[in-house]
Amino acid sequence: MGLPRLSDFQLAYGAVPSPGPGQVVVRSQYLALDPHVRPRMNAASLNGRPLAVGAVLPGAAVGRVVRSAHPRLRSGDEVEGMLGWQEYSLAGGGGLRKVDPGPAPLSAALGVLGLPGLTAYFGLLDVGQAQPGETVVVSGATGMLGMLAGQIARLVHCRVVGLASGRGDASWLRDELGFDAVVTAGNVAGGLGELCPDGVDVYFDTVGGATTDAVLQRINVGARVCACGQSSQDNLERPEPGPRWLDRLIARQARVQGFVVSAYAERFPAAREQLAEWLAQGELRSREEVSHGLESGPQVFIGMLKGERQGHQLVEMGLS
Amino acid sequence: MGLPRLSDFQLAYGAVPSPGPGQVVVRSQYLALDPHVRPRMNAASLNGRPLAVGAVLPGAAVGRVVRSAHPRLRSGDEVEGMLGWQEYSLAGGGGLRKVDPGPAPLSAALGVLGLPGLTAYFGLLDVGQAQPGETVVVSGATGMLGMLAGQIARLVHCRVVGLASGRGDASWLRDELGFDAVVTAGNVAGGLGELCPDGVDVYFDTVGGATTDAVLQRINVGARVCACGQSSQDNLERPEPGPRWLDRLIARQARVQGFVVSAYAERFPAAREQLAEWLAQGELRSREEVSHGLESGPQVFIGMLKGERQGHQLVEMGLS
Repeated sequence: MGLPRLSDFQLAYGAVPSPGPGQVVVRSQYLALDPHVRPRMNAASLNGRPLAVGAVLPGAAVGRVVRSAHPRLRSGDEVEGMLGWQEYSLAGGGGLRKVDPGPAPLSAALGVLGLPGLTAYFGLLDVGQAQPGETVVVSGATGMLGMLAGQIARLVHCRVVGLASGRGDASWLRDELGFDAVVTAGNVAGGLGELCPDGVDVYFDTVGGATTDAVLQRINVGARVCACGQSSQDNLERPEPGPRWLDRLIARQARVQGFVVSAYAERFPAAREQLAEWLAQGELRSREEVSHGLESGPQVFIGMLKGERQGHQLVEMGLS
Repeated sequence: MGLPRLSDFQLAYGAVPSPGPGQVVVRSQYLALDPHVRPRMNAASLNGRPLAVGAVLPGAAVGRVVRSAHPRLRSGDEVEGMLGWQEYSLAGGGGLRKVDPGPAPLSAALGVLGLPGLTAYFGLLDVGQAQPGETVVVSGATGMLGMLAGQIARLVHCRVVGLASGRGDASWLRDELGFDAVVTAGNVAGGLGELCPDGVDVYFDTVGGATTDAVLQRINVGARVCACGQSSQDNLERPEPGPRWLDRLIARQARVQGFVVSAYAERFPAAREQLAEWLAQGELRSREEVSHGLESGPQVFIGMLKGERQGHQLVEMGLS
């Protein structure tokens, strides 16, 4: 409960392991510090098993195979997977994705072409069923998930309204990413009333709490809510009550779907093709902040949870 | 807000109208007092337009055409429709359903074969997607919707756990309607823990509030919640806050769908065929309470909202 503190993190050194049959050792180049790791740090984690104290923190990383005992992966191959907060990882080769060398920078394998891109894609199009001409609201719009979901909504010809904290760069969302409008914290209810005069058809939610309460006041008949994250709730010292809104869901014949992207694993390759096409066309942009050295991870992670850092937070491991 | 009082109701007399082209005059025999009317009595109604003060209360009724200017309806035909709390109604013939004479009593046109039966059917099977072997929890199990949803769940080979107020008849739900288990008010969380050891796959909700909070603590991955009504909230003097549970919905990849049966109007005939078959086989039972005379309506309606009356509340208009 509460924000993690620096003293909750510990850097440990160990011997580089040797791969058993079917395994590889990967030296990571980039590690993604994604907010979805935070709920798993609670003792009563709902998202899968709680993390054991002393365990390596989970996280997607991309790097190079340095030793291989797997038939399809060779030393030097670039791979992506849930390798965790560590420089060298021992991993089953079957759980890794070989990154095709191409025009995209390696870090894109963690972003537009990684779990954030896939989550935005399936969340908006499959769970949210966003249709051309509809109004899509995205909370946490300056976060990696939010900025990608908003751009995908624009690409499928929706009207996109982003919700951003005051610290967010509203003009960047509008001018660079093509959001139609941005509502900033402090006046969510009023801003939505003004900027969504025809109501809300799809809500892509990464924030929850009072932000979500305000959006639910404006949903249309048949609206779809894709709940991807609840960052406003993750660091509370104690759970916060809120207004009940099932009566509104009934009146609006609206749906709320809790969403974890792993359910779509079989469809990742096709989605990645579409995302790569948009990326190559310059239609999908993201903002990356790269910090250097694994030891920078805890501070950056805490800053991100506090809302002090916008965009995708990456740690570069400092390969020579 | 709050419970309606007897002084909120007024009985009025007027001349029996004459039908214009395409219209009929119906003399109602039975009027259904369904709880879904209650939210529309609030000034800030979410379910469609709020009722105007002085307007006839809405309600499904079944009766006989006494005058017709509609090409397909004749005097003497039995029809069902939203005729409201009145003995004689002027109605467009197109909005009425001709009730086939058959083995079912006329009142079944308002119950198993009417909106309650259809709501339970589509809510459980289409919104809830109940599958054989799954655990289905039904709140408000002694209410008309709940008792029908529970029996349909049994008929499609689910395990059915009903939630009933202490005043409800748990043994009747088990012995007569075939519910597998019944949890009574006061120990919902504990009772669910004991009686749903494998969690909850489908939740058919007519009650909301703390009852729903307790069920959501036990939903399985991929669970579906069909929200049909929120009777615990309809009569509150002021809205009641509750715990937020979107994080749980995400962790469980679960869905909540607000549901109004009118969206399924095109599929009513096929559903009614199945319901009529189950009814004829004795597989779908309901409990009716019939009061006499329209003047009995307000007291019965208030008693139902207080939870003092179980089963389907009908007013017999006292046709000679």
